[in-house]
Amino acid sequence: MKGDKARDYLEGYLERSAPPLNRFLKTKTKEAERVGKIPGQLASYFAKLSKKGKRIRGALVELGYLASGGTDKEAIVDASLFVEIGHTGLLIHDDIQDRDELRRGMPSVHSVFAKKISEDVAGSDAGHLGMSLALNVGISAYFWSLERLAGSNFSPDRVLSAAALYAKYIQRVSYGQALDVINVLSIEKNEKELINILKYKSAEYTCVLPLLVGAVLAGEQSKKQMKLLEKYGLALGWAFQIQDDLLGTFGDQSKTGKSNSSDIREGKVTLLVLHLLKHGSEKQKRTLRAILGNIDASEEEVEKARAVLVSSGAREYVEKLAEKYVKESAFLAKKITQEKYLQNVLVSLAHLMVERTS
Amino acid sequence: MKGDKARDYLEGYLERSAPPLNRFLKTKTKEAERVGKIPGQLASYFAKLSKKGKRIRGALVELGYLASGGTDKEAIVDASLFVEIGHTGLLIHDDIQDRDELRRGMPSVHSVFAKKISEDVAGSDAGHLGMSLALNVGISAYFWSLERLAGSNFSPDRVLSAAALYAKYIQRVSYGQALDVINVLSIEKNEKELINILKYKSAEYTCVLPLLVGAVLAGEQSKKQMKLLEKYGLALGWAFQIQDDLLGTFGDQSKTGKSNSSDIREGKVTLLVLHLLKHGSEKQKRTLRAILGNIDASEEEVEKARAVLVSSGAREYVEKLAEKYVKESAFLAKKITQEKYLQNVLVSLAHLMVERTS
Repeated sequence: MKGDKARDYLEGYLERSAPPLNRFLKTKTKEAERVGKIPGQLASYFAKLSKKGKRIRGALVELGYLASGGTDKEAIVDASLFVEIGHTGLLIHDDIQDRDELRRGMPSVHSVFAKKISEDVAGSDAGHLGMSLALNVGISAYFWSLERLAGSNFSPDRVLSAAALYAKYIQRVSYGQALDVINVLSIEKNEKELINILKYKSAEYTCVLPLLVGAVLAGEQSKKQMKLLEKYGLALGWAFQIQDDLLGTFGDQSKTGKSNSSDIREGKVTLLVLHLLKHGSEKQKRTLRAILGNIDASEEEVEKARAVLVSSGAREYVEKLAEKYVKESAFLAKKITQEKYLQNVLVSLAHLMVERTS
Repeated sequence: MKGDKARDYLEGYLERSAPPLNRFLKTKTKEAERVGKIPGQLASYFAKLSKKGKRIRGALVELGYLASGGTDKEAIVDASLFVEIGHTGLLIHDDIQDRDELRRGMPSVHSVFAKKISEDVAGSDAGHLGMSLALNVGISAYFWSLERLAGSNFSPDRVLSAAALYAKYIQRVSYGQALDVINVLSIEKNEKELINILKYKSAEYTCVLPLLVGAVLAGEQSKKQMKLLEKYGLALGWAFQIQDDLLGTFGDQSKTGKSNSSDIREGKVTLLVLHLLKHGSEKQKRTLRAILGNIDASEEEVEKARAVLVSSGAREYVEKLAEKYVKESAFLAKKITQEKYLQNVLVSLAHLMVERTS
């Protein structure tokens, strides 16, 4: 398959990054354990969760670095972990907001600690306390991430530029997330806001941020190259996001490690949903509206929502849109680097975005 | 009063830091407004809340800088704001966990947005959504804070050292907070953990972190000076923390801007509580245990808890302890700098910690 080269690359990155990631997580877990039992347990669960990530963002930091002529392969793997550690923190905070029970095939942090507390202390306020613990370990993660970045083996000016990019893009993630919280309540009100949500929360953050950080750590000075990486990243990110939404509704839970019903139950406004609400028949719209955002919707109802997303043509539309982004990023990939191997990986990565099943 | 010189100093800092703080908050609010209505409202409320802080931490960054021979007064005020912005983020996340309704004399973020949502959309899941919005603006705040620090006008190596300190100490805050969440359930189990909570969450974070960051930004190279600042900060921090606990239970709400019952209702394990549980009579312990951590305790019951904290001698004990820390920090202040004005401010600051009523 066209995504094979990228698949190999990502597997390679997973292997390369495992030892430094494990070392970092071990250090943090030990530190937290010295403070107390619960911080230790939180850090240890965080470590398990971290190891299960696909680490696409980390790999993109490495790719952005290599594509900008960087040569210190050990230092970039080490530095790239910051984005993965922070990302796991964001996921923990997302799961609190979405009340997701499952993450990367494991119980989400808030749910596992709520369960633990309710077993230890009957009748206690377990849900709230579990949420509070998850909130705290998420905060820890942002600052573990900053520590990782600040301690990386690049010149301070480059690291600081990377930190500034990090700050800029995560701010947008959280603006997008705030919009998302509220848009559950007001679909159709503001399409521009909805597109912004998807752009900020995922497309930009997942691909543009890591690629640019990699470039900055390599000391990239060319504005043209930065712009190309940004464009490539954005197209890649849209393809990624669309596939994510497709998997979130039509995916195989045993492969994705997360629920394929919660997007619908939580009323997530995806491009799928937007297309139906704009172009579907009145009946299709009514069907979807009655189910979307209903946290208590039955599995049957969720299946009905899936069916109208197919019959309205929404699924086909977003699949084609993703293909368009794949082509665009493959085209841009060839301008980013003339180094054949890297070029092939970047092109293949675009294809992988829509081939992936997890 | 002995704290007057410090009071003047802090007022001066409040004035000096207001223009750059307001500019930063305005920029961020505008940015967020461009993304959408809700991010704009969140940023705007955050700005209001930020302006109401006492800004002790920011002033301590400045003091640490001046005491280490720093001379760029404009740059240090600008840089010092990062700690205030991040702190407001932490408070927002704290209020979620403690379910506090009041902060700095205003409704807390989660409660104000929950109310707003429930007015807009009857019967909706307003509490959870308000909490989610508060969670997001808190995340934004951490990265606004990082942006402020990364963009400050000091050499990259100094800024990076400051960022590393920041990361180190905030991690401990969040470990401490995690301990705190659970210790509500298991008072008396582990006194060492409880002391750690107070140390990490407040004493170190409030005073040691900002002083050391200030020193690092001034390019301080002397380990002896760093150690002195750390010791001074820790003693100052303990005095601050004890006074905070006293105000949290015996304070005048109209001055503190926060509830004087919620520490008891939330079951906060303060040195006050620890002393009673260790040295009080069986009857006093029973009385306190029956009320502490009972979220529905009546105002009368809270008053009863206050009464045993006085009659057991706990209040007197912690007041004396705070005085001990004041003396210690005043003693250390004289070793930190030979510059008379600064020395006087640092000594006076120690006294102010226990004189303050808000």
